[in-house]
Amino acid sequence: MTDPLAGVPAEVTIVEVGPRDGLQNEAAILPVEARVALVRDLAGAGLRCIEAGAFVRADLVPAMAGTDAVLAGLGGLEGVRLPVLVPNPRGLQAAIEAGAREVALFAAASETFSQRNGGAGIDTTLARLREVAGTATAAGLGLRGYVSCVAGCPFEGEVALEAVVRVTRALVESGCAEVSLGDTIGAGTPRRIAQVVGACAEAVGIGRLAIHAHDTMGQALANVLTALEMGVATVDASVAGLGGCPFAPGAAGNLATEDLVYMLDGMGVRHGVDLDRLIRAGEGALAGLGHAGHSRAATGRRRARPAG
Amino acid sequence: MTDPLAGVPAEVTIVEVGPRDGLQNEAAILPVEARVALVRDLAGAGLRCIEAGAFVRADLVPAMAGTDAVLAGLGGLEGVRLPVLVPNPRGLQAAIEAGAREVALFAAASETFSQRNGGAGIDTTLARLREVAGTATAAGLGLRGYVSCVAGCPFEGEVALEAVVRVTRALVESGCAEVSLGDTIGAGTPRRIAQVVGACAEAVGIGRLAIHAHDTMGQALANVLTALEMGVATVDASVAGLGGCPFAPGAAGNLATEDLVYMLDGMGVRHGVDLDRLIRAGEGALAGLGHAGHSRAATGRRRARPAG
Repeated sequence: MTDPLAGVPAEVTIVEVGPRDGLQNEAAILPVEARVALVRDLAGAGLRCIEAGAFVRADLVPAMAGTDAVLAGLGGLEGVRLPVLVPNPRGLQAAIEAGAREVALFAAASETFSQRNGGAGIDTTLARLREVAGTATAAGLGLRGYVSCVAGCPFEGEVALEAVVRVTRALVESGCAEVSLGDTIGAGTPRRIAQVVGACAEAVGIGRLAIHAHDTMGQALANVLTALEMGVATVDASVAGLGGCPFAPGAAGNLATEDLVYMLDGMGVRHGVDLDRLIRAGEGALAGLGHAGHSRAATGRRRARPAG
Repeated sequence: MTDPLAGVPAEVTIVEVGPRDGLQNEAAILPVEARVALVRDLAGAGLRCIEAGAFVRADLVPAMAGTDAVLAGLGGLEGVRLPVLVPNPRGLQAAIEAGAREVALFAAASETFSQRNGGAGIDTTLARLREVAGTATAAGLGLRGYVSCVAGCPFEGEVALEAVVRVTRALVESGCAEVSLGDTIGAGTPRRIAQVVGACAEAVGIGRLAIHAHDTMGQALANVLTALEMGVATVDASVAGLGGCPFAPGAAGNLATEDLVYMLDGMGVRHGVDLDRLIRAGEGALAGLGHAGHSRAATGRRRARPAG
């Protein structure tokens, strides 16, 4: 009998996306001070890469307004990567002016999703990204890339593996040190994830890949496990399972960081995050948002925790 | 790069435990007619093994009272295994009189859990089971075994792998055709599940093993995936994630059958269950119980379903 876990890395980097991908998709809006507190709490729990916000149009994504103030409020936070999402040259310029040291770029593997979510087709988007990436690199910024819809599209349904590989390769060629493969609508299952990771690893190397799973259909952790088994060593997750995708009908909830941390702890995989401090960080954000969290590990741990 | 999914069986038997392990741990009690309807709906969705009830003391487990009437109400349901749980000779006798063709026996791998949940230590329990199993076999009944606490105990914490193997072997030696390894409190992660499955497979053969995961800490589907990767071809699950364990503090919720079915569908693994009919079966039970279900796949599918 072979050990299916033989390929799981000894150490994994968790990219905490709650303060951006999470909060961006919540109905309630957290003020700048609460977002600063959340990022600081997450860093205090041991996270070393936290997506801190996005430089997007405040009228379209009001939850991300004031990302410059968030970064300013995080001054002095050492040893923590704080990527911010930028969709275009204007966003990049704002990020640079705000002192960002790393930016995240994104493109979809689905033509329809790209047009509806980003306002341009894949080719146009990739051409724009090359320009943004070039400017960012010249300015000395780190670059992270996202490919969305790697396991399905809310408009097109199935997405060709070739499209995922093409976008992944383009992001790497543009200068992204790391590309996060996003199952935006949470439609994927382990077989598809294995195919996507396998094909993209062949194109750009397993070391450049991250996995970004949504839990819409309850598959997120199983999908992440599959990616880990194939050697992926960077995993995106959102504290308390914050977020979803307002542009993707039916999609709800990132993989909860707590559930991931619990699994990695149980498997002896190093990651540096303290589960109980992480749960408390999530509780702080949930208090501001006014709803219960989506992490089962957090709920399970709270029930087991002595009252008082 | 090796394919971690290479060992996943082409076909899996789903053992639906909602009408027993699920309902037994719900606050509300479903009347006999509703339980008959649920089992019939589940069979209609394609399930071919459905745990239909338990012959236990009605004063201790009122939700299972009238299991004889449930079996009577299921007369004429052909081609479906309907195991019922029996804890002792009296329960077995009642099951035989009610026309049961298969019974399920259980023992814990934790001494303290065995004493608190079953009122006797492991050795005493196994001796009693041998007797019950002998009578059942002589009566021509099929036998299924459960080992609880394979990945941890609510009282003792860690449970020795050797204890899990010992109980598994004893159940097989008593005549159980299949032994279901139960993570009763949902504390396990894939590494532990791989160890448990590996050790038990060495003792009794992989073909006799089933996996029974609870989702307390959000790990159930990842744990089941690991078992599948190691060749386990029988998986327990509970429609709508019904149930938990009233004897295990902090434990809540079986793996939802819908989430499992969605994963198997996406992986091309045959199982015979129609996801949409399964979701409707769960909705029927939930209406009687008066709360929302725990299946994320069911929720995701409902959101994607056109209204009206």
